[in-house]
Amino acid sequence: MMSDYPQHEPDDLNVEALRSRAVAAARGDMPFDILIEGGTLVDMVTEELRPADIGLVGSLIASVHEAGSRSDAERVIDASGAFIAPGLIDTHMHIESSMVTPSVYAGAVLSRGVTSIVWDPHEFGNVHGVDGVRWAVEAVKGLNLRTIVLAPSCVPSAPGLEQAGADFDASVLSELLFWPEIGGVAEMMNMRGVIDGDPRMSAIMQEGLASEKLICGHARGLAGADLNAFMTAGVTSDHELTSAEDLMSKLRAGLTIELRGSHDHLLPEFVEALNKLRHLPQTLTLCTDDVFPDDLLNGGGLDDVVRRLVNYGLPAVWALKAATLNAAMRLGRSDLGLIAAGRRADLVLFEDLQNFRARHVFAGGVPVAENGVMSVALSAADSKPLLGSVHVEELSADDFRVKSAGNRVRLATIDRPRFTQWGETEAEVVDGFVVPPEGTTMISVVHRHGKATAKPRTGFLVGWGEWDGAFATTVAHDSHNLTVFGGNVEDMALAANAVIKAGGGMAVASKGKVTALLPLPLSGLVSEAPLSEVSSAFEKVREAVGNVVEWQPPYLVFKACFGATLACNVGPHQTDMGIADVVTGKVMTSPVLAVIG
Amino acid sequence: MMSDYPQHEPDDLNVEALRSRAVAAARGDMPFDILIEGGTLVDMVTEELRPADIGLVGSLIASVHEAGSRSDAERVIDASGAFIAPGLIDTHMHIESSMVTPSVYAGAVLSRGVTSIVWDPHEFGNVHGVDGVRWAVEAVKGLNLRTIVLAPSCVPSAPGLEQAGADFDASVLSELLFWPEIGGVAEMMNMRGVIDGDPRMSAIMQEGLASEKLICGHARGLAGADLNAFMTAGVTSDHELTSAEDLMSKLRAGLTIELRGSHDHLLPEFVEALNKLRHLPQTLTLCTDDVFPDDLLNGGGLDDVVRRLVNYGLPAVWALKAATLNAAMRLGRSDLGLIAAGRRADLVLFEDLQNFRARHVFAGGVPVAENGVMSVALSAADSKPLLGSVHVEELSADDFRVKSAGNRVRLATIDRPRFTQWGETEAEVVDGFVVPPEGTTMISVVHRHGKATAKPRTGFLVGWGEWDGAFATTVAHDSHNLTVFGGNVEDMALAANAVIKAGGGMAVASKGKVTALLPLPLSGLVSEAPLSEVSSAFEKVREAVGNVVEWQPPYLVFKACFGATLACNVGPHQTDMGIADVVTGKVMTSPVLAVIG
Repeated sequence: MMSDYPQHEPDDLNVEALRSRAVAAARGDMPFDILIEGGTLVDMVTEELRPADIGLVGSLIASVHEAGSRSDAERVIDASGAFIAPGLIDTHMHIESSMVTPSVYAGAVLSRGVTSIVWDPHEFGNVHGVDGVRWAVEAVKGLNLRTIVLAPSCVPSAPGLEQAGADFDASVLSELLFWPEIGGVAEMMNMRGVIDGDPRMSAIMQEGLASEKLICGHARGLAGADLNAFMTAGVTSDHELTSAEDLMSKLRAGLTIELRGSHDHLLPEFVEALNKLRHLPQTLTLCTDDVFPDDLLNGGGLDDVVRRLVNYGLPAVWALKAATLNAAMRLGRSDLGLIAAGRRADLVLFEDLQNFRARHVFAGGVPVAENGVMSVALSAADSKPLLGSVHVEELSADDFRVKSAGNRVRLATIDRPRFTQWGETEAEVVDGFVVPPEGTTMISVVHRHGKATAKPRTGFLVGWGEWDGAFATTVAHDSHNLTVFGGNVEDMALAANAVIKAGGGMAVASKGKVTALLPLPLSGLVSEAPLSEVSSAFEKVREAVGNVVEWQPPYLVFKACFGATLACNVGPHQTDMGIADVVTGKVMTSPVLAVIG
Repeated sequence: MMSDYPQHEPDDLNVEALRSRAVAAARGDMPFDILIEGGTLVDMVTEELRPADIGLVGSLIASVHEAGSRSDAERVIDASGAFIAPGLIDTHMHIESSMVTPSVYAGAVLSRGVTSIVWDPHEFGNVHGVDGVRWAVEAVKGLNLRTIVLAPSCVPSAPGLEQAGADFDASVLSELLFWPEIGGVAEMMNMRGVIDGDPRMSAIMQEGLASEKLICGHARGLAGADLNAFMTAGVTSDHELTSAEDLMSKLRAGLTIELRGSHDHLLPEFVEALNKLRHLPQTLTLCTDDVFPDDLLNGGGLDDVVRRLVNYGLPAVWALKAATLNAAMRLGRSDLGLIAAGRRADLVLFEDLQNFRARHVFAGGVPVAENGVMSVALSAADSKPLLGSVHVEELSADDFRVKSAGNRVRLATIDRPRFTQWGETEAEVVDGFVVPPEGTTMISVVHRHGKATAKPRTGFLVGWGEWDGAFATTVAHDSHNLTVFGGNVEDMALAANAVIKAGGGMAVASKGKVTALLPLPLSGLVSEAPLSEVSSAFEKVREAVGNVVEWQPPYLVFKACFGATLACNVGPHQTDMGIADVVTGKVMTSPVLAVIG
């Protein structure tokens, strides 16, 4: 059922007519627009569960009063048996990771009680540059999901070692931070650049400081002097926790924590460490970071992080407080995070504090969802600007081969998935092409942004198992060039061409046939299809990759594919320019080290 | 000993040279300016007491690291045995209440560990208008005490019922809020105006909302619908707590609490209620509100509130957290409230967590005090603009008498100190003047701001004891007109003329002699003398008043004098216009109700 309530909240709570109407209703001189009665309020200040009724006027909470003391309202919502919390706030995430549009994402999480997100449109930025960030800013304006957009700080992640669709230096950051819609600087991934005072990163930090907006972090593995330097430069948060010890040391350091749900195996130890403190630090917030489409469909967004933390033993009130009041304080949003008169009417009625099924969700006073079903239509932004982002002509099998003189060569290899290191091997050369040596998997990266030649640069991975086929994807962090993994160049060309034809996405080919395809024609990252469709196609791709490669567990390999090109990480990484090494700052255009025969 | 460190912090932490120097020091590539070693850090996030060393560079905390892991610094401070906390933050106060200048006040509290205050220069505003607020803003710029100045919201407190030196309507608030130095709207004392949607107060609230700055409250006695309406209008804090129940109900309502030390008798029950919660709400902050000069000298500023709360049983870490991290979050100041790399170097080293004697105090990286003694000189602002604020010519005894026709009259009286109510009595008329009836005390208010005739308006108080003399003061909330209490007009004229001659202040006269005088020539509110001198003179005035009036306890009478003219409170109050009643909105220019003989 579509509601006849206004779909979009007003830009501003400070309209005089709204305030005076709300004050009059609070006094009792006018009925409320909506009265939520009979529920149990989860009090984020006192940590009590207590009965209270709530009166809404427009986008404002006008009254939180004794149960049953008022009954005058245009509409009454029966909250009997339900727990009422402020709408959940996700303090760090990338919509693109869910491979759906902002409006589809909004529908998926609003219906579950998430009413605000902090979005780093880093992937759109890498593909479309400032235009991509502008598109993100505009796309969320039509949604009831309150979205704070951040300015991507590391486009590309490894300047000089890869070519993205854009290059955000300090002058670009300055422009983005000037927009009123931009809430700050998104995760500073170039940690070494910041710590070592690299001029590019220092200049970007200065723009962030000058803007007086948030400067968010990515402090993976940092401790001691490095962490101090990173924070002294101006970074104030982190979501890259690796252990309970890391969590505690970063809380002590004074970072705001965006505790993320994407690494589920760490959550039990986080819960244990927090419970030992016997109070919830106010600097602890929650985030999703990256959620694959099937996880979004089956699990949810930030609500799923709350659910899992509680199931691992965190008190429900703490989990909700981290997701509401703590988040609002981090964001400097005094209109959010509490159910209190004068704040924005973002509320969720949960059936219980274990499974957190949302019975009703209000965003800016608008009843947006009931029993998991949206009651307002969310307007999708025009997707045309995101189309046609894959600037690559059809490729041949030979394009994926590595050329060489001679008959035998010494080759550089990229050993070990995820935590890569340099390796070496020898290979035959036949008809001017290197024959992939036993035990290696080819990785080819094709520049696809129209800024350089769109031909594969191929390298050799070690430790990625035996590939009986190929996997091609335009989702490949962070530059999102067309990246192809495979055991033979024929299947690699087949998979790559399927993706090129679809205008972006993922494809699997094996034994001369395309076995799965997920078209992601928007930016090569996202589909306009409904979530269920994207989720199902994504599952099929994952399954098809599982049939192509032997290495166990298959899921881990698959996820590793998307990060194999992340050249800002330590160790060798294949990019569209060759094999890059962030430590030496050098790129080898070919893996051939020397002709030895 | 005067320090050779720079006296004033830089305006901004975001200077590139400062940041890069601090980052280099954090990395270990440069020594710190100051290294604080061997102390125990009070961790406001985890609530732990833990050993840590702290490196400062300029106004920044550059490093918080393992004890003993660094020793390279220009200067090393031995913190052995000390507890290190962020500098204390007083979230609501009026410097004028201490009757000293901002620089004297700063010296008194900085040396005790208070490094930030939120000042409502309401009294200067009432006397000098916008110029008074401007003076306040400029006066604090020369100090190491970080001062957030608020825009007084209720000048005068009761428009139409009294005449202050200024009238701040919405257009004045708009101007003040536009200044970058102004942090928000100060305590909204006109509660009924806000709740009832009075046009003047609604317009002022709208300016506050539009500014997106703080809107602070004064929610005395508010609960239920009134409290909801007050908050829905936009007010977000309160310091006017009357009981533990009131505290809990306002925490639940979602107000930020500025728990004040000025009403000491309430603190034990506040502590008991907070301890029952078993965690400290992050919306609880601490403030002093008003501190008399002798209390400032003997007790202190916010440090004394912390000390007393801890002595009443609040965990020391909670008291400090309320005074630091919670305050910083309330104020949206991510540079304050934590000892963390990248934050402002406001720190205090306490000898213990019971008496809170400050061993060292750092403000913006500057060592400002050691063992209670300032080590920097604080520059006093030019006081000339505040001089000559008492626009009253010498008065005669007859000026204080109430004129009347006839021989006998019915008189209106102001009954009961503090919580006043209307009364009636009869009186003789001799030679055209009312003879003060038995059991009454005269109160005369003389307009002193040059906006109206500067002649006494006299009324009759009941319940104020027998006065053998008079007390005159230009400190008389909130309009600070010259206010004289007395049992005979001769002593009243004597005391008043002593104050007029001093250019403002307080004087006591008895039996034809001036027995005590505290000159407050700046605005009639403040002295330029050192605190010890002001404190001593103030004590003498209090003692002298105690010799004039019988009513017990003397101190309570004395304090009541300063609020006897507070016309915004319910009940009759004498003002420069007559006897005002905020409930009826009317002023009686003379207490004579009718000539009856």
